[in-house]
Amino acid sequence: MRNSDITVADYLIYRLKEIGVDHLFGVPGDFVLGFFNQVLLSDLAYVGTCNELNAAYAADGYARIRGVGAFSSTYGVGELSAINGVAGAFAERVPLVVITGSPSTSSFRNRPLLHHTLGDYQIPLRIYEKITAASTELVSAEMAPVAIDQVLSVCLSHQQPVYISLPSDVVMMKCRPPTDFLFPPDLGSDPDVLGEAINEAMDMLNQAQKPVVIGDVELIRFKLQKIFADFLDKTGLPYATMMLGKTVLSEQHPQFIGLYEGERSRDYVRNRVESADCILQLGALLTDFNTGGFTAKLDDVKTISANIRSVRIKHHVYENVSLQDFILGLTARLSKRDSATLDIQSAVDGCEHRSAEQYQADEYKPLTIKRFFDRMSHFIADDAIVVAETGVSLFSAAEILMPKGVTFIGQTFYGSIGYSIGATLGAAMAAKARQVVLFVGDGSFQVTGQDLSTMIRNQLKPVIFLINNDGYTIERVISDHSYNDLQPWLYHKLVEVFGGGLGFDVHTEGELEVALAAAATADQLIFIEIHTDRLDCPESLVSAGQSMAISNQLE
Amino acid sequence: MRNSDITVADYLIYRLKEIGVDHLFGVPGDFVLGFFNQVLLSDLAYVGTCNELNAAYAADGYARIRGVGAFSSTYGVGELSAINGVAGAFAERVPLVVITGSPSTSSFRNRPLLHHTLGDYQIPLRIYEKITAASTELVSAEMAPVAIDQVLSVCLSHQQPVYISLPSDVVMMKCRPPTDFLFPPDLGSDPDVLGEAINEAMDMLNQAQKPVVIGDVELIRFKLQKIFADFLDKTGLPYATMMLGKTVLSEQHPQFIGLYEGERSRDYVRNRVESADCILQLGALLTDFNTGGFTAKLDDVKTISANIRSVRIKHHVYENVSLQDFILGLTARLSKRDSATLDIQSAVDGCEHRSAEQYQADEYKPLTIKRFFDRMSHFIADDAIVVAETGVSLFSAAEILMPKGVTFIGQTFYGSIGYSIGATLGAAMAAKARQVVLFVGDGSFQVTGQDLSTMIRNQLKPVIFLINNDGYTIERVISDHSYNDLQPWLYHKLVEVFGGGLGFDVHTEGELEVALAAAATADQLIFIEIHTDRLDCPESLVSAGQSMAISNQLE
Repeated sequence: MRNSDITVADYLIYRLKEIGVDHLFGVPGDFVLGFFNQVLLSDLAYVGTCNELNAAYAADGYARIRGVGAFSSTYGVGELSAINGVAGAFAERVPLVVITGSPSTSSFRNRPLLHHTLGDYQIPLRIYEKITAASTELVSAEMAPVAIDQVLSVCLSHQQPVYISLPSDVVMMKCRPPTDFLFPPDLGSDPDVLGEAINEAMDMLNQAQKPVVIGDVELIRFKLQKIFADFLDKTGLPYATMMLGKTVLSEQHPQFIGLYEGERSRDYVRNRVESADCILQLGALLTDFNTGGFTAKLDDVKTISANIRSVRIKHHVYENVSLQDFILGLTARLSKRDSATLDIQSAVDGCEHRSAEQYQADEYKPLTIKRFFDRMSHFIADDAIVVAETGVSLFSAAEILMPKGVTFIGQTFYGSIGYSIGATLGAAMAAKARQVVLFVGDGSFQVTGQDLSTMIRNQLKPVIFLINNDGYTIERVISDHSYNDLQPWLYHKLVEVFGGGLGFDVHTEGELEVALAAAATADQLIFIEIHTDRLDCPESLVSAGQSMAISNQLE
Repeated sequence: MRNSDITVADYLIYRLKEIGVDHLFGVPGDFVLGFFNQVLLSDLAYVGTCNELNAAYAADGYARIRGVGAFSSTYGVGELSAINGVAGAFAERVPLVVITGSPSTSSFRNRPLLHHTLGDYQIPLRIYEKITAASTELVSAEMAPVAIDQVLSVCLSHQQPVYISLPSDVVMMKCRPPTDFLFPPDLGSDPDVLGEAINEAMDMLNQAQKPVVIGDVELIRFKLQKIFADFLDKTGLPYATMMLGKTVLSEQHPQFIGLYEGERSRDYVRNRVESADCILQLGALLTDFNTGGFTAKLDDVKTISANIRSVRIKHHVYENVSLQDFILGLTARLSKRDSATLDIQSAVDGCEHRSAEQYQADEYKPLTIKRFFDRMSHFIADDAIVVAETGVSLFSAAEILMPKGVTFIGQTFYGSIGYSIGATLGAAMAAKARQVVLFVGDGSFQVTGQDLSTMIRNQLKPVIFLINNDGYTIERVISDHSYNDLQPWLYHKLVEVFGGGLGFDVHTEGELEVALAAAATADQLIFIEIHTDRLDCPESLVSAGQSMAISNQLE
């Protein structure tokens, strides 16, 4: 680029592409049109969504596949509609770039009573500061390049959302051209602290007869899967994941023993983890859903817990140790164990919930949740992306042993219902060659379902299973009252309203087979409405409901 | 109530009913179920919506009819989804009570990694502080009654949203029973300042030959319509409204001359207002849409501008004067003018845009926006509620002279598209005996359309006109590019998916008559999809688009 040609919009678009953003999700509005006009002229693809919340969710789903995502909307009305989607990414450590097209810098100074404003023009920025790792208002062409680089660097180093407010008069201002982007390096470790932590961990692991590893969410978010796989290869240790860390590596890995979720775990997994004489937690977050409602029995005295910037062993903490350095250090020094001594029942060898069960459809039998997900464990393809909505879908799909190379997506900590529709749009856009399968309930679908039409518009071809169980089952298992009822929609007819895709209405196992057969040959979006009983759900969800009822004093 | 029987939830419900809230809009989630369980036992009706943004919009629409509205949802995921709806009410001064069911007080202290949380448990409260007039976290049964009374008092005195966070363990705690609620009195005026301001205003008005009044939004928000009507009766002066103040009084009032919106006004209205030798503005906000994109020519030297707490005359300001006292003072002292000297062409006598035109359908003629709204001016019933979405709908409907007693609802300052669906739900719930008519565009409908199903679920019977002009026309008039395109939906078929109501697909004037005839006899929700050309819109919208293009440097 020639120096004189570069505008602030160009600079920002160039950087987005450079860090891996090829698609920008958004909704137009007058303050952002100048930026969008430059996007249309660039090789950053614009993907319009029905509303801003879904744009944020789409960017989140995209980021979970591509490593980073972005969405853009107009000042006030647009950006504030997306707050909850960004908050979810903030909680779950998903890197998003939020770009708001704002009123001109002179309006920020003079504060006229313009549409979309709230008196103090900085209210949206002040709100976004609470749910982003960095934020900036590009007040001049001089400061814009540095400010853009800074917030993008924080986005990648913190793996959290950042916010950029781009006033309409700054969009086309000329600025300096981009130099090479300095991708933020791992922050590294204090070598003395690192050495001591590794020594202590080595001693514990070497003395243990039956150690076990829990590989969880931070390994995914900070892209340490390869390092984790090398560690497993070198050591031969068995590992479990928690819900947030599901599919950190292929679940067909021979050392993978299954999902650990406290009392909600399969017996073998719970016993193997809780009876281990050393538990190495890598990147685990002890959230309620990750720990089976805080029923995990992980003895501190036997536990080494490494997180992104610290290691806790027994009851003391080593600060300034990076997770990456810690795993690399252990990998370098640990020797391979004899697998015969480790009591490894690998999940793929038949012990995870549904993996080995044969499924034979009973044509006229009404579908149940258990039978449906049994069938699904044979439907999901290698390398698929499986998105599961919070509720029956998440708790059921989490218990499926996923085929080779599958990526599992759920908002398993923040748990905002409605997330999965936008996330599926984003994930499908991020990986057009992969099978994308969504499991979503009726209540969640009613929150954000309109962007099904955006998938159709963009010729995306996910297979969507809408589990119609007549209301908010995740709330019914806590407290079953009329507020959990919904207006019954004919969900499977929405494809007709939205102008594409094939819809199916499925009550029986036989009807499911017909729909799946069609799905196998159709080159379009498939939307299958599954009817199940209103309280039909996995034991793990019943347990979660009881624990929420108790903690909210509803019993 | 017996002292020992009263819980914090009961107290809050009692107060909501006392200030005029009969319906609570909401979406369930585990932290709020305890509160909802008490609502179900009370005479406060629970109305579930598909999502939280629409719950907020519904409460807003309800408040514009009933005087105050409320919605409730769960901590984090729920309340943060509604931010934009509350921000709109904050900007437009609509009193809402936002009630969040939060984690227990011990969780607030200990901050476990619970679902729906963001690390710092007070982030939602800190965000809501930016867009509410008062907020509180009910940390104990001792403080709850005082805190509830305080924030409700601010809600009514400021006519803006307030926020109450109700931890799950406080819901059922016993508290003192409610004493009489002290409705906040008008703050009153400094009598010396008031006297001087009235004297100066009297001099200007008495000396003027052709004074004119602009009655605007604060008269509606602060419920001063009766006082304003008395002022008009006593003085005989002509008045105009701006868009925000539309239907402050019945537009059939003989002294009403029409809508003033700067250069976008009808010629007579613009000339009459701008050539007046004294302009008395009562409760006017000089926003961009209210002033025709800041094209209003209102000479400061001739202007008396009274707002809720101050009066500006020429270039000086009187503080501590209440709008109510000022109008009452003028009413007491001004005499009736001879109407013959005042040049009053009343809107009802045939000069407002469409009032006197006869309409004869031309059966096969494709519908245009102009012809459609001409027809609508004969369709809207006396005492109807007319809701118009920002865009073609708002700018067109604003120019219809409304029949006797009609209430016009639009988000005419904040202008968030998608507002009107929830607002229609809320308004229809607030006034089941009145005709409710909604005008909404395709782009706006895609944002929030699912709560059409909630209207059906609640047997509400609005007449909904969806103007399908193939995209975001309000953005096309600013900058016409592909981001304004939408996936084409078969909108009129949604009633079938949602399980109720009659849908019509209308391309011609003849088809419109068929649909309107059915609407006249059907006792159910009517949804009429109107097809018009993509750039067919009123001149006022073209003008607004040009002014936004210029201010955003898109020309």
